Amino acid sequence: MIDWIADYYETVEKYPVLSQVTPGEIIDQLPLNAPLESESMDQIMADVNSIILPGITHWQSPNFFAYFPANSSGPSVLGDLLSSGLGVQGMLWATSPACTELETRVLDWLADMLQLPEKFKSTSTGGSVIQDTASSAALSALLAAREKKTNYLTNQTGCLGNLVAYISEQTHSSVEKAIKIAGIGSNNLRLIGVDEKLAMRTDLLELAIKQDLANGLIPFFVCATVGTTSTNAIDPLTEIGNICQQYQLWMHIDDAMSGTAAICPEYRFILNGVELADSFSFNPHKWMFTNFDCNCFFVADRSVLIKTLSILPEYLKNQATESGAVFDYRDWHIQLGRRFRSLKLWFVIRHYGVNGLRFHISEHIRLAQQFAGWIDSSDDFNLMAPAPLNLVCFAHKKGNDFNRQLLDTINKEGKMFFTHTMINGQYILRMCIGQTHTQIEHVRQAWETIQKTAIEIILKST
Amino acid sequence: MIDWIADYYETVEKYPVLSQVTPGEIIDQLPLNAPLESESMDQIMADVNSIILPGITHWQSPNFFAYFPANSSGPSVLGDLLSSGLGVQGMLWATSPACTELETRVLDWLADMLQLPEKFKSTSTGGSVIQDTASSAALSALLAAREKKTNYLTNQTGCLGNLVAYISEQTHSSVEKAIKIAGIGSNNLRLIGVDEKLAMRTDLLELAIKQDLANGLIPFFVCATVGTTSTNAIDPLTEIGNICQQYQLWMHIDDAMSGTAAICPEYRFILNGVELADSFSFNPHKWMFTNFDCNCFFVADRSVLIKTLSILPEYLKNQATESGAVFDYRDWHIQLGRRFRSLKLWFVIRHYGVNGLRFHISEHIRLAQQFAGWIDSSDDFNLMAPAPLNLVCFAHKKGNDFNRQLLDTINKEGKMFFTHTMINGQYILRMCIGQTHTQIEHVRQAWETIQKTAIEIILKST
Repeated sequence: MIDWIADYYETVEKYPVLSQVTPGEIIDQLPLNAPLESESMDQIMADVNSIILPGITHWQSPNFFAYFPANSSGPSVLGDLLSSGLGVQGMLWATSPACTELETRVLDWLADMLQLPEKFKSTSTGGSVIQDTASSAALSALLAAREKKTNYLTNQTGCLGNLVAYISEQTHSSVEKAIKIAGIGSNNLRLIGVDEKLAMRTDLLELAIKQDLANGLIPFFVCATVGTTSTNAIDPLTEIGNICQQYQLWMHIDDAMSGTAAICPEYRFILNGVELADSFSFNPHKWMFTNFDCNCFFVADRSVLIKTLSILPEYLKNQATESGAVFDYRDWHIQLGRRFRSLKLWFVIRHYGVNGLRFHISEHIRLAQQFAGWIDSSDDFNLMAPAPLNLVCFAHKKGNDFNRQLLDTINKEGKMFFTHTMINGQYILRMCIGQTHTQIEHVRQAWETIQKTAIEIILKST
Repeated sequence: MIDWIADYYETVEKYPVLSQVTPGEIIDQLPLNAPLESESMDQIMADVNSIILPGITHWQSPNFFAYFPANSSGPSVLGDLLSSGLGVQGMLWATSPACTELETRVLDWLADMLQLPEKFKSTSTGGSVIQDTASSAALSALLAAREKKTNYLTNQTGCLGNLVAYISEQTHSSVEKAIKIAGIGSNNLRLIGVDEKLAMRTDLLELAIKQDLANGLIPFFVCATVGTTSTNAIDPLTEIGNICQQYQLWMHIDDAMSGTAAICPEYRFILNGVELADSFSFNPHKWMFTNFDCNCFFVADRSVLIKTLSILPEYLKNQATESGAVFDYRDWHIQLGRRFRSLKLWFVIRHYGVNGLRFHISEHIRLAQQFAGWIDSSDDFNLMAPAPLNLVCFAHKKGNDFNRQLLDTINKEGKMFFTHTMINGQYILRMCIGQTHTQIEHVRQAWETIQKTAIEIILKST
């Protein structure tokens, strides 16, 4: 299997990046019933090759420029394999102390790598936990904020329709989903307008808070984003943080992809203001060579999070928990059970070293900036948003329909895969550079493909 | 790494099952800072052996009888490795059609293996999705129930303190946690009393519903359990289902561990009444040789679940989604991102075949029944609850303090690991048989250890 994976990485560029199958094409090749008797691994792997592979969209292709990346690496896959092999379930410290303590230490490493303030470390009042996704982290932050604001009464009474949360129009949809899940209700979520850089306007934020207070509502939560999904916009953390402190709102920072850039000293500025936050989350499974899933969720005061999410039934009681000397990470997230996910993160950080990670990350940013430069100096394309890091938003000058056709044509051809967004009614193409093996030749080939395809579409229509 | 894991499985019995380290012992051996430069895989594996292994509680030891199992198998580890290697993120059908379609088909297989009614299959009105844990599945069920009952208005208005849910006193704590998360509030959760078998009393359930209705509240959700965590009690599904239909409540069935037994025709009776349920969840990662995490969450009407959890921002729009011809599983759970977890389930079912799975499961039950027989015919120990499947609850006749001492002594010795619960003020020992490699000799050795240790404690105290 290891050999199969190594071969796959070597040959991944020969497959269309975006799977070209039609709905039902894969499932129709799978038997309607489970086999009654054992089948051989050879049979299974033959089906992997003939049935499954054509249905894969190749996130690990160096020509994958879509969404945000979910990159990976050899040491990560090996660390994850070790986790699968050990098969421990780390819900409590006692159910595998190493699972808890390695996680605590590696996340403290990360706090230092990101130059987070001391309060986010386990050695201070806070700490961090590995969650599956930034969605779950945002939900956890929202719940802790809800309980802190209501003196932990909402856990008992349920929501009463009077708590209000704030995000920008560009905040990721997971926060709206969390608002619904947590019983707050989307009517109590304010979408704050953005400035010309697509960052949250703090004058509008403060205005909305004041209006809600005047109406007898209870503002309690702001989610600021460092690197929005559409365009990588960066909300003004310091200004938002000051408003949160003034009005006693919980400030959560969603830095899902871009957080990784902050381990490079020259890009650490994106986190200026994080010292004002109550919680912060980023995904090594996006851009830090750690295969999905691995979100790191930092809180400044772990006691609030634990008090919000802890329930201790008899069958989980044990001396270590009762001593208070240990973390039971089940109290830090929604789920009870948990994998030993810190192994892969530990493997990645040790294999690359901090300097190695910095090198690869800054290289990705350099490639994206080069691509942005090509767009900027092109007669046919425009940059459509600032490109502070590794995401470039651009569009052909021929308008929405043309850009939609351009994207579809290229993605169907299969040499590369990129996606789109809409900003102010404009259909915008997104090119995000973060796959582990993406090099200058892939970016150059992408730019050539984009230009060539645009010309072909124009020629065909004339 | 594959060799390391194979060696580990061969030698796992030499380690103490319950890790014997003290709090801080692992973390104190880990450097305070991340390495700046790359380290070799040899260095990392040396630390795995010297630092991590002593901090492992060996869930994959055949002498692990604690909690519920989280068993595993070779094909599962390989399937999971393939998932890590492919590194796809299956949030949408388009982001890897095989990830969605294999999951759909394998879960339809499982529906048939469990003889679930057609409504739970993707080919009918329902379907299934792999979630991380039964906690998340229960939360998803609760949210779907909440929205269905309130005509999807709660997602907008937030909870208003008037929805009421029902579980038994023995229901798993994850449901209380979900009640808090969803903004319902624990004050609106009724803990229904149980009968002498520790199963929910439906007369008390109906009484509680009537009282709440009389008080102007809105009953909306019941969680029935097949195999409670403390004692493996089985709630009366048909009676609960009839009450739910009469009063229009959503019926969720949590069958986290015991569900696996229902693939054996002779134990399928535990699911009688499932045809009345709206949702059903069980964990192949507990007892079906599929390494953590893998929960299967079935719903009878997928449209309710999707309408509850779907949000479609522009950057996730694509032709396949808009055609309505595909499932986007991100709309079936809390998270957005998702691993390709159906691979390991597919590998396990094909490797064992349905008959192979049945053989191993019924063998575990046979071993547990044998152990229960030994307890029953012992002069010193009593069975403390019915043992319908693979969990045996027992206690020494010398009372709570003695049993507590007995458990601690054995777990500290390290030859086996089991856990406890409290029922009606009695401290009860739990012995759950479900690790992949547990054989009669391990169970016999466990029983000998228990008897011998009890005698030693008595001798020491006299």
